[in-house]
Amino acid sequence: MELLKSHKSVREYSSKSITNALLNDILESGIRASNTGNMQLYSVVVTTDAEMKDRLSPFHFNQRMVRGASVVLTICIDFNRFSQWCKINCTSTDFSSVLWLLNGVIDASILAQNICIAAENEGIGICYLGTTLYNPKEISEILELPIGVVPVTTVTMGYPEGIHEVADRLALSAIVHREKYSKYSDEEVMQIYHEKESLESSRRFVVENSKENLAQVYAEVRYKSTDSEFFSGKLIEFLREQGFRL
Amino acid sequence: MELLKSHKSVREYSSKSITNALLNDILESGIRASNTGNMQLYSVVVTTDAEMKDRLSPFHFNQRMVRGASVVLTICIDFNRFSQWCKINCTSTDFSSVLWLLNGVIDASILAQNICIAAENEGIGICYLGTTLYNPKEISEILELPIGVVPVTTVTMGYPEGIHEVADRLALSAIVHREKYSKYSDEEVMQIYHEKESLESSRRFVVENSKENLAQVYAEVRYKSTDSEFFSGKLIEFLREQGFRL
Repeated sequence: MELLKSHKSVREYSSKSITNALLNDILESGIRASNTGNMQLYSVVVTTDAEMKDRLSPFHFNQRMVRGASVVLTICIDFNRFSQWCKINCTSTDFSSVLWLLNGVIDASILAQNICIAAENEGIGICYLGTTLYNPKEISEILELPIGVVPVTTVTMGYPEGIHEVADRLALSAIVHREKYSKYSDEEVMQIYHEKESLESSRRFVVENSKENLAQVYAEVRYKSTDSEFFSGKLIEFLREQGFRL
Repeated sequence: MELLKSHKSVREYSSKSITNALLNDILESGIRASNTGNMQLYSVVVTTDAEMKDRLSPFHFNQRMVRGASVVLTICIDFNRFSQWCKINCTSTDFSSVLWLLNGVIDASILAQNICIAAENEGIGICYLGTTLYNPKEISEILELPIGVVPVTTVTMGYPEGIHEVADRLALSAIVHREKYSKYSDEEVMQIYHEKESLESSRRFVVENSKENLAQVYAEVRYKSTDSEFFSGKLIEFLREQGFRL
């Protein structure tokens, strides 16, 4: 549990490479994770080639981790392999529904986290790139993903350089409900976020973005509705192209 | 990595309870996992009460793990708490898009897996219940989940009883692609699934279900298109009720 509790996102990596043998061992551990019906409806694309990192980088908004990492893993839902197996065996499955899209996202995410923990256990630093769902079509074209395959998240990995701090978290009592969901009063919500709002880094965000409070930084700068609308439109279009009924 | 490699889904539990202190420690470890923008857009509903387990059980198709487990955790996307915080702070976010639905599913799944590993590290057995997405409305009613909260997956936990075997997995080479996705020839696909098809348990499934091969058992018995269609329809209706634009 100490390993989990000391987790930090690592964005600066040393030039030391992750060996192929170690990467394989990490991935072997990763695929031991639970998955729906043990169908393993996922694939992992490993990027170590510098030119491939350069090509992926702009679609992760040039976050420095892509070029800086030893290994970039694009974790995908994969209904292609299983469907091909069914076809060979004179049958067919229909994974095009929203239910299966979400099942696929769950399994790919559980796989990703198992891989991350295996890596962290070896002293490797990881960072998730949520940008994967912002530009899934462009990323898929670079990685040549066929119909039925959807990149869900990307994990960058490398040996850490410099000091990385454990990020703040809300108190457990804010997240956990006993037996039934306990609705929050406004006072409780203010209490829940008080410590986060009081952090030096939060105060700086508010000032730098000329906002009145931290919630406004999140809602009006970092995660604007207009951006969400734009990227969600792109995502839906891509999912339809990959065979989903949305 | 040995811990990850020895993972097995545990469906039979002893009567020994998981203490509150240990459960809290497991959950504390869990919430250290990476999440989008560190907004922690998730909640966990803990079920230990026997009556509540009885109420949940039919919506997990009476799988024995629900009543048998010491603790049942329903892991949810939670946009409610954050939205309330925004409202108090005179701003608003729009998490109703497909993009944010998938971001939410990813974060909830990563959280779930971190919790599972923390539990397994303490000798506790876990099992995921994919049935959560089959009956999300009924489960939400029992747990009194408000608008903006969606149960994504359920984890049952308890000390293992009896012997549980590590499940088969495809060879790593079947899952991992180097630099670009390598399309499979039919021969390769047959090779990939050959070992799985040869398992004693697989052969038994084929005979018991009067099918010609394992792929048909999956496609025509375990995960039929008509079931997927029915439950996906229910899921979409529920997601719309919870505020998503689908």
